Amino acid sequence: MIKAGIVGASGYMGGEALRVLLDHPEAEIAWATSRTPGPAADHHPNLYGLGLDFIHPDDAVGGDVVFLALPTAASIESARRFLEAGSKVIDLGSAFRLSDRETWEAVYKQQHSDWDLATEAVYGVSELHLDEIRAARLIANPGCFSSAAILGLAPLLKEDLVDERHLVVDGLSGTAGAGAELAKPAHHPEIGNNLVAYNVIGHRHTLEMEQELSLLAGKKARVHFTPVYVPVTRGILDVCHSFPKRPVSRDDVLGLFRDFYADSPFVKVYDLPKEEAVSWQYKPYPWVSAIAGTNYCFIGVDVDEARGRIVTLSVLDSVGKGGAQVGVENMNIMFGLDRQMGLSRRGLHPN
Amino acid sequence: MIKAGIVGASGYMGGEALRVLLDHPEAEIAWATSRTPGPAADHHPNLYGLGLDFIHPDDAVGGDVVFLALPTAASIESARRFLEAGSKVIDLGSAFRLSDRETWEAVYKQQHSDWDLATEAVYGVSELHLDEIRAARLIANPGCFSSAAILGLAPLLKEDLVDERHLVVDGLSGTAGAGAELAKPAHHPEIGNNLVAYNVIGHRHTLEMEQELSLLAGKKARVHFTPVYVPVTRGILDVCHSFPKRPVSRDDVLGLFRDFYADSPFVKVYDLPKEEAVSWQYKPYPWVSAIAGTNYCFIGVDVDEARGRIVTLSVLDSVGKGGAQVGVENMNIMFGLDRQMGLSRRGLHPN
Amino acid sequence: MIKAGIVGASGYMGGEALRVLLDHPEAEIAWATSRTPGPAADHHPNLYGLGLDFIHPDDAVGGDVVFLALPTAASIESARRFLEAGSKVIDLGSAFRLSDRETWEAVYKQQHSDWDLATEAVYGVSELHLDEIRAARLIANPGCFSSAAILGLAPLLKEDLVDERHLVVDGLSGTAGAGAELAKPAHHPEIGNNLVAYNVIGHRHTLEMEQELSLLAGKKARVHFTPVYVPVTRGILDVCHSFPKRPVSRDDVLGLFRDFYADSPFVKVYDLPKEEAVSWQYKPYPWVSAIAGTNYCFIGVDVDEARGRIVTLSVLDSVGKGGAQVGVENMNIMFGLDRQMGLSRRGLHPN
Amino acid sequence: MIKAGIVGASGYMGGEALRVLLDHPEAEIAWATSRTPGPAADHHPNLYGLGLDFIHPDDAVGGDVVFLALPTAASIESARRFLEAGSKVIDLGSAFRLSDRETWEAVYKQQHSDWDLATEAVYGVSELHLDEIRAARLIANPGCFSSAAILGLAPLLKEDLVDERHLVVDGLSGTAGAGAELAKPAHHPEIGNNLVAYNVIGHRHTLEMEQELSLLAGKKARVHFTPVYVPVTRGILDVCHSFPKRPVSRDDVLGLFRDFYADSPFVKVYDLPKEEAVSWQYKPYPWVSAIAGTNYCFIGVDVDEARGRIVTLSVLDSVGKGGAQVGVENMNIMFGLDRQMGLSRRGLHPN
Repeated sequence: MIKAGIVGASGYMGGEALRVLLDHPEAEIAWATSRTPGPAADHHPNLYGLGLDFIHPDDAVGGDVVFLALPTAASIESARRFLEAGSKVIDLGSAFRLSDRETWEAVYKQQHSDWDLATEAVYGVSELHLDEIRAARLIANPGCFSSAAILGLAPLLKEDLVDERHLVVDGLSGTAGAGAELAKPAHHPEIGNNLVAYNVIGHRHTLEMEQELSLLAGKKARVHFTPVYVPVTRGILDVCHSFPKRPVSRDDVLGLFRDFYADSPFVKVYDLPKEEAVSWQYKPYPWVSAIAGTNYCFIGVDVDEARGRIVTLSVLDSVGKGGAQVGVENMNIMFGLDRQMGLSRRGLHPN
Repeated sequence: MIKAGIVGASGYMGGEALRVLLDHPEAEIAWATSRTPGPAADHHPNLYGLGLDFIHPDDAVGGDVVFLALPTAASIESARRFLEAGSKVIDLGSAFRLSDRETWEAVYKQQHSDWDLATEAVYGVSELHLDEIRAARLIANPGCFSSAAILGLAPLLKEDLVDERHLVVDGLSGTAGAGAELAKPAHHPEIGNNLVAYNVIGHRHTLEMEQELSLLAGKKARVHFTPVYVPVTRGILDVCHSFPKRPVSRDDVLGLFRDFYADSPFVKVYDLPKEEAVSWQYKPYPWVSAIAGTNYCFIGVDVDEARGRIVTLSVLDSVGKGGAQVGVENMNIMFGLDRQMGLSRRGLHPN
Repeated sequence: MIKAGIVGASGYMGGEALRVLLDHPEAEIAWATSRTPGPAADHHPNLYGLGLDFIHPDDAVGGDVVFLALPTAASIESARRFLEAGSKVIDLGSAFRLSDRETWEAVYKQQHSDWDLATEAVYGVSELHLDEIRAARLIANPGCFSSAAILGLAPLLKEDLVDERHLVVDGLSGTAGAGAELAKPAHHPEIGNNLVAYNVIGHRHTLEMEQELSLLAGKKARVHFTPVYVPVTRGILDVCHSFPKRPVSRDDVLGLFRDFYADSPFVKVYDLPKEEAVSWQYKPYPWVSAIAGTNYCFIGVDVDEARGRIVTLSVLDSVGKGGAQVGVENMNIMFGLDRQMGLSRRGLHPN
Repeated sequence: MIKAGIVGASGYMGGEALRVLLDHPEAEIAWATSRTPGPAADHHPNLYGLGLDFIHPDDAVGGDVVFLALPTAASIESARRFLEAGSKVIDLGSAFRLSDRETWEAVYKQQHSDWDLATEAVYGVSELHLDEIRAARLIANPGCFSSAAILGLAPLLKEDLVDERHLVVDGLSGTAGAGAELAKPAHHPEIGNNLVAYNVIGHRHTLEMEQELSLLAGKKARVHFTPVYVPVTRGILDVCHSFPKRPVSRDDVLGLFRDFYADSPFVKVYDLPKEEAVSWQYKPYPWVSAIAGTNYCFIGVDVDEARGRIVTLSVLDSVGKGGAQVGVENMNIMFGLDRQMGLSRRGLHPN
């Protein structure tokens, strides 16, 4: 059994890691920490009655793998500490996601205190970096919006099919993506029947998208990203618009995606047919409710041949495939387990 | 492997049975039917990409166990057919839930065409009828409100602690409890920011509650039940008020519940302390979000010693412990498996 | 024009007072205060572009009428100050709602520093205290749950029709009722798909209900009240159960309510017929969406003749008829205006 | 008093027209029709107790102005009939919105039976066509997404500031925008915690946007529009991306919008400052909750100078400024009344 530790387990990422690891056949929770030690159920009522208690971070020792759900500075320090003690580390935060130091320091408005680690870390999108993850000691788990957009655009960039300077992404996020910390835009009377655009330009995840898509394109990709909080809980929908360089049909693009993700068990290309006579067309596009609670990403596609536009719709769970579950997927890969172990259950629909 | 068939699999109960059985280590889906055969994913988008297709009900043959999610008349007929073919049958509907024919026919406003089966059927609350379920061929799966209220009141009636003629229950239900059929009170613009009381007197589940609680009390119990749809999806909260016959404290009642459910793995008595200095007291009471997607029922308790009232708060998932999952629990029991097999995963919090 | 001041205008009560007074033909906003002076739109985005600024409480002087939306101690002090300066005062808080000092001090866990004011204050349910309100200097605006329950039970107690010791009320409240202050049970990821019972016994509004209903009954009434937060925004539904002392039909009770509220323009008795053949009966009961944003209370009724129970369903908007709008209604009455002035617009359905 | 008739008053558009006209100082409801005559409150519970009854369409005669909320074919026929009887007509549907017959017939997949009317009709965006509306007999009320996008992009196109061939608009719509007709994507268990993209390419409103923006630009504009249903009720947010042809700052664009809408009382340019130190920037952007129930459109702006993108965020109420209320605004203009009459109340925040 893999012994897993979780640092900062009182937030939603930590809670999801606990929930999934509890059910994992080859891993067990060695310990979990919180700045306020005590029953895990105080933070995660779904874990009531299991006798699971949080310990103080200072008491956390050992673990074959350690998941970090911490603010940036603490992440960097903890990563170093656990790596030196021989653990593998999966950082659910943003300390190691960017490969360019200048970019990272500009985006996060601080100096990075241990850039060697950032250089070592592997960006944890398994669909793109499988072999590197297999060999890694330190994983930088991707941002939720980033995962959805990268998976939703990767085949187009790889194929050099679209104008790489005009990739437009609107990210619709459930409020769990904003975390367990109380905040006015997540206060129910404010958001319950509302839509809250934020960081309309310059959202940090933009840089992750540009990094990975540039890598695939072999040239500098530019992503125009705007996020909006919507009154759902876990779901994320990235609506990705791109402009094809040559004529292409919906079937062409679906085929391209099917090929690209042929060996990716957690990405499902949603290739339902459009029904010509139907004036309200919604069946060919994936729903976030379909992947709630899971590590799946469903991707739908459409093409406006007349106007020259490709739309890809990428849905995932912000704390599942967009968060702690992809961390567990990376753990599986790092430890040579079946990549789908403990992660294959289907989504809670309806929810 | 137990071969399971599902009749009427296109609704939410059928979808939940499929979702849970897909992940069950000792059962497999032999077939599932719908009046509109075709891909299961057309109805249950979470099942996309599994290649699972619904067959026509006429083509359904065999199965060690058959789950029925059908209108009443069709349930009766199907139950007879599958039992005669040697299957065990778990009816998720209401055809066999009442033991008194006159009551059943009055409540359902029709004649029952096969009362022998109703006589044979075991009411599937495992916490009360474990041995009978073990021996049964035919299970009448309880109603969602009924399960919550019966579990929330059983120990009080068994102990003769409360006035059995003035049991007041308000049932708050998510809209999945109303089913997949379109209806105005479940139309999002109507219910999304609304509360819809319905069948304010005489709801059918009342009779199930009275039947089971009378049995426990050894005398006629009277339940005053009113349901309300609320804009959540799966959760049910039954707020159960009763008037104690003798002075009793919160601790007394918690103790009584703990004892009663000592051997019931799916009922968790929520016995968190009340904090005296806190003016906004919500932590001692269970949340429906904590049990979303599960077969658990969490029960909280409070006592107004000054006014003479016991409140029990019983939460479950209307299609989980209030529906298809308790059906799978009953299947486990009927086939001699571990009762918790495939059902032990914790709730999707937050959701 | 009546000059109105609002103290503590940054919360939901203050915002609603502003919204309604802006549209009132005979009143105008003289000033509004906040501990953080500045644009009102920082707190109430609906007021963007009006140039309305909050002043510091110390700068608030004058006003024919002053609305207080403050914590208890501050309310008491401010009420005294503004009354002495010659203003009429409408307290939207709870400082003056109870007429019995011992009860008040027990419930609010503090000593009351100015009980003379509490003695003078009129409890602002206009349907019960119209003449006293007309003559008052100081109004204690009722609690939101209290208003709904009192209006939903008053005719029954007045008529001595029901057992006054077993009045059971479940209060379902939208999250705006909890106020603008951030809190975990109002954090969207927690409540968006959840139900949060709280203060399951002993909620403060219980005492208001008992006070007013006892007055009507001419004997001590006992209310068994439990509140639950639900994921709606403004609506409140009080489900009121009572046990009739003599046989009574739905029509009898509807008639009783119609008579009682014959001169009450803001209470609408919802007397739609029940349709015998319908198995899903929801049309005869009022919806909170129907009264969103208004000063109306709709009351529905049903009677279980077989079991001996009356159910009254009372819906209102927690910051409208349950809050600031009833304050404006009381202002109208105190100043001899048409009681409905500025308050007659119908609810925002759907919302 | 202007006598107003409403044809097809049982839907959300009709209900909103009724709600607003009830409160209009210079108009009164002469009659309202439905295919199922009877109490208006059967469809619009907020109108309970007013004694307002729907008549059969065949019985509708007269009216200074007639609002049509009908399917296309019926709209065309009714418009002709009421115009010939001397009424002014405001069509809330889509029969007369496009000025190019070929485009209309391609988009609506039918032949238009009375194109003379379409030629005569004025497209009812008052901010662009004020004089024509003043003189019109027949108004084609704009689509909800169209209004938001046109208002959010008009100044940019008028100024020739952006690439008119790459206007990208994501439209997030509440479910009331889908109408009162029951449909699976609006069934609460499906949409309550979900996001439903639909008509991802080729949505009909695209053509309205292109028509009006081309007119402003003086050349063919191309709009890349994708709509998504979100679990809110009335709000619409159009996120509009455009690529500037020359360097431009946020202040420049805000200034441009302020000038363009200087005389437009219902458009509020949301020009709050960005706070440099804040990493979670949401205050500078408008919320749909701020304009719920109103005829206002709030527009926010941001500019990514580094990447070359302008984002405009346009929010309105799909049945208010995006529907029946703009119809009443047009009525005011057509009859020489103050344009804001009956429409100036501020939004129901929180809601």
